[in-house]
Amino acid sequence: MEWCQVRTNPERRQALIDAAIEVLAQEGARGLTFRAVDKEAGVPTGTASNYFANRDDLLTQVGSRFYERLQPSEATMAKLTEGPKTRANITELMREVVSRIEAFRTGYLALLELRLEATRRPELRTVLTERVRADIDFNVRNHLDSGLPGDEKSVLLLYLALNWLIVDRLTLPEVFTEEQSQELIEAAVERIIGGGD
Amino acid sequence: MEWCQVRTNPERRQALIDAAIEVLAQEGARGLTFRAVDKEAGVPTGTASNYFANRDDLLTQVGSRFYERLQPSEATMAKLTEGPKTRANITELMREVVSRIEAFRTGYLALLELRLEATRRPELRTVLTERVRADIDFNVRNHLDSGLPGDEKSVLLLYLALNWLIVDRLTLPEVFTEEQSQELIEAAVERIIGGGD
Repeated sequence: MEWCQVRTNPERRQALIDAAIEVLAQEGARGLTFRAVDKEAGVPTGTASNYFANRDDLLTQVGSRFYERLQPSEATMAKLTEGPKTRANITELMREVVSRIEAFRTGYLALLELRLEATRRPELRTVLTERVRADIDFNVRNHLDSGLPGDEKSVLLLYLALNWLIVDRLTLPEVFTEEQSQELIEAAVERIIGGGD
Repeated sequence: MEWCQVRTNPERRQALIDAAIEVLAQEGARGLTFRAVDKEAGVPTGTASNYFANRDDLLTQVGSRFYERLQPSEATMAKLTEGPKTRANITELMREVVSRIEAFRTGYLALLELRLEATRRPELRTVLTERVRADIDFNVRNHLDSGLPGDEKSVLLLYLALNWLIVDRLTLPEVFTEEQSQELIEAAVERIIGGGD
C-alpha cells in the first residue's frame, strides 16, 4: 500500500491542479476553494487540503501548470529550429501557438483569473512575474537562436498582440471571426517582423 | 423634496456604478453584491437595489461607464484631427491613451473582471461585444478620417498590442518597466504603422 500510494501521489496532485483550473475558469477566483477542487476532481472532501499548504500554494501551482500543459510539441520546436528561415514560417508558428492556447480555453481563462488575483496577492504576483518573464525570455532566446527574421522587439510585440487577440477570442468571441483572427495573425507577423518575404 | 430627488438620482446612480467598479477591482466579480456596492458608496443598505433591476443590469452599466470615463479629452481629439500627419504624432497619441487607461487602474481591472464574467453570462457578453466593437469602429473611423499614416489593420494591431501591454503593466508591473513600456509603444507604432517618418 505504501508503495502504491507513493506512485499515485504525483498523479493525484496533478489531477487536483487540473481540477483547480476548471474551477477557476468556471467559477472565478473567488469560487476556488479546496472543497470545490475536491468536488471537481471527484475525490473525497479533504483531499486537496492534504496536497496544498493553503490556497496561495494551490494558486501558484496552477500558474506553473498552465505553462507546463502548453509546452510546444516536438514538431513545433523542430519547425522553429529547423524550418525555413522565412516570415511565412513564423506565421505558421504563430497560428499554431494561438490555436494551441485557444484549445486550452479553461487554462487561459484560469490564468487571467490568476492575473487579477495577483493584484490582490503579492506572493502570487511574484511567482507569476517570474513565470511570465521566463516564458518571454525563452521565446526571445529561441527566436534569436533560430535564425528566423526579426529581433527581440518582434518577439515582444507578437507576444503582446497575440495575447490580447486570444483574450478577445475567448471572452468575446464575436468581436473577431475566425477568419479575421487569422488575418490579424498574418498582418501582425508581416508588420512586426518586417523585411518582406 | 420630489424635485430635489429627481435632480439627485442620476448622480447617485453614477456614484453607485463607480462604487461597483471599485468593488470589482478590489474583490473580483464574485465579490460584487448590492450590499458591497452600498458600503463602498457610503449609502444605506438597500440603495443599489433601488437603482438596478439585478446584478446583470449593474454589470452591463459598469461596462458602459468604463468607456464613458475614458473618453479622450478635447486636446487629444484635436491632436488626432488637427495634429501633424506623422507617425510621431501617433506615438504621442498612443502614449496618451495608454497612460490615460493606466491611470484608471480600477476601471481597467473591473473591465477584465467583466470580460471573465461574460464567459459565464451570455447577456453581458452581448452587451460587452457591442461596446468593444463600437469602440474599435470608432477608433478605426477616426484614424482613417484623420489622414494619419496607417490603415484599418494598423488600428486593430495597435489595439491588440497596447491592451496586453496594459494588462501586464496593471497585473504584473515588474514584467516591463515604465521605460520598456514606452519603448514598446514606440516600436509598436513604428512597425505597425510602417512607412518611416
